Amino acid sequence: MKLTYEQMSQRFASTLQKYGFDAGEAETIADIFTETTFDGVFSHGINRFPRFIGDVISGIVLPGAVPTKNPTGGPGAFEQWEGNRGPGISNALFCTGRAIRLARAGGIGCVGLRNTNHWMRGGTYGLHTARLGLLFIGWTNTIPNMPPWKGRIPTLGNNPFVMAIPYKKGPVVLDMAMSLYSYGKLEWHQRKGLSLGEYGGFDQQDRLTRDPSEILRSGRILPTGLWKGSAFAMVLDLAAAIISGGYTSREIGTHGAETALSQVFIAIDPSRYMSADQMEAMVEQSMDAHTGSNPGTRFPGQRSSSEGRVSREEGIEVPDALWEEILTL
Amino acid sequence: MKLTYEQMSQRFASTLQKYGFDAGEAETIADIFTETTFDGVFSHGINRFPRFIGDVISGIVLPGAVPTKNPTGGPGAFEQWEGNRGPGISNALFCTGRAIRLARAGGIGCVGLRNTNHWMRGGTYGLHTARLGLLFIGWTNTIPNMPPWKGRIPTLGNNPFVMAIPYKKGPVVLDMAMSLYSYGKLEWHQRKGLSLGEYGGFDQQDRLTRDPSEILRSGRILPTGLWKGSAFAMVLDLAAAIISGGYTSREIGTHGAETALSQVFIAIDPSRYMSADQMEAMVEQSMDAHTGSNPGTRFPGQRSSSEGRVSREEGIEVPDALWEEILTL
Repeated sequence: MKLTYEQMSQRFASTLQKYGFDAGEAETIADIFTETTFDGVFSHGINRFPRFIGDVISGIVLPGAVPTKNPTGGPGAFEQWEGNRGPGISNALFCTGRAIRLARAGGIGCVGLRNTNHWMRGGTYGLHTARLGLLFIGWTNTIPNMPPWKGRIPTLGNNPFVMAIPYKKGPVVLDMAMSLYSYGKLEWHQRKGLSLGEYGGFDQQDRLTRDPSEILRSGRILPTGLWKGSAFAMVLDLAAAIISGGYTSREIGTHGAETALSQVFIAIDPSRYMSADQMEAMVEQSMDAHTGSNPGTRFPGQRSSSEGRVSREEGIEVPDALWEEILTL
Repeated sequence: MKLTYEQMSQRFASTLQKYGFDAGEAETIADIFTETTFDGVFSHGINRFPRFIGDVISGIVLPGAVPTKNPTGGPGAFEQWEGNRGPGISNALFCTGRAIRLARAGGIGCVGLRNTNHWMRGGTYGLHTARLGLLFIGWTNTIPNMPPWKGRIPTLGNNPFVMAIPYKKGPVVLDMAMSLYSYGKLEWHQRKGLSLGEYGGFDQQDRLTRDPSEILRSGRILPTGLWKGSAFAMVLDLAAAIISGGYTSREIGTHGAETALSQVFIAIDPSRYMSADQMEAMVEQSMDAHTGSNPGTRFPGQRSSSEGRVSREEGIEVPDALWEEILTL
């Protein structure tokens, strides 16, 4: 079934209103689920929407809850916000906006968000910041879902890390989980009956494997860069909890569901030193150097931005059964 | 030959003074080369010292040059400094100090440093920030020395990225190049006649290999996390050049030597929301969860901090030939 952007986002919005979201919040969340889908990231777009509604029904996500500021911060460019277990998308967009506002005033802004829910595609917050001409650095922790390198017990989250840079052909958006493959990617390969392109984890006999089913059984997904992604995940988790005053993965693992996450949003405004045109030229020259010398190489975010442009014009194909499921929600 | 910390740092300092550094600058740089060596990181410590003196002799590093501030920045917590091709260590320490000062005033501080030289061990700046109770995020670009994933031409730098968190048993310091193995590690394995523990790059026949000599010949070192480290390196390079108003790796590759680098120093002061004791307890509980459930797992920075403690007490063994070489400088 082929759907336009409008058809999908309006359906998401009306469904969200049915489950207790007011019109504005419903439109915001619907728009991000739709944008993510149209950029080709189904795993955190339309595929995830039914589960998001499930999380509302089960009380993990509280419609109408909005972030509240920690009043003890004092002046400056570093704020802490309590997420009150509201929707991850609207909480994270709000904090992205705060970081942007702080950066425009003081060059850089940092917001820690505690006690929030899954932000879906991390790249969203990089995209939104970069479209406004600022740089973005941000990350989230998750439930423990990955063993440290050479370990067997999944005590680490795979804690996605995001950086973004303005670019007319882009933006440039790095959206990088600390596991080489996300669980969404493993499930996608499993459904299609495909092997992974590279080793993605260990089987139950401690052997590296490309078989997604074996990894989903063992729960031993491989860190990005082996010992490096393992160490990076430890540091991101801790830094998110400290900056937000929130929970680490260790504590989140005791909640019985993936909720009460800690997130960080940093925006940097380069405009006080460099014009948008100067920045654009620098990005273009640099990306052309990499991709021109290495045919087939893309810049981070290139695929989703070009897919997004096409699908917004032509509509997007979604599986009939999935759309039927969404219509029954 | 066994040396004490004092013996090594005094010799470095007197040598540096012979090559045009004033006493204070010489002591600062000598101390970092010594600290790095005593922490077990010879590649960016004593092993690198003769080459650093060579870079002074050849005019790549200018003794006495100090950073100057870009005056167009306006108020706030984001500063740009011109490195004037001074010593990478003292330039980077200065900018770390600026970021800390800004963070103490406003919660977060960001300093971009352009036109500087190799900062040696990136972890140094994380260590120094974390010892003062603040969080650190920073990175540098480098000459192009790594092909993008699936590319053949080394257009990327391996752009080390650093994060640090205060911890009495540490600090926790992530110091992570975007190549799975650094060139220093490849050379170390080559000298010892050892294979790498994991695939570290491609040979000239496009095959993945663990043989360090083959990788040094091909110049095709493997990105950390394959496509992920490749993308991360692109973004770090660009962000460093934008934040500092400096050069990208593409431009640095035309300089004939690794100089005029771009670096970023971000400090975050958690003390306005959390006491040092609360932070310490959070770090300890989190690190205990990972290492306790997974015997043999270390937290990032653990090995160098424990080696550093032992070697500061007992002195450190350095190869006779290397020390003889340093005495002739």
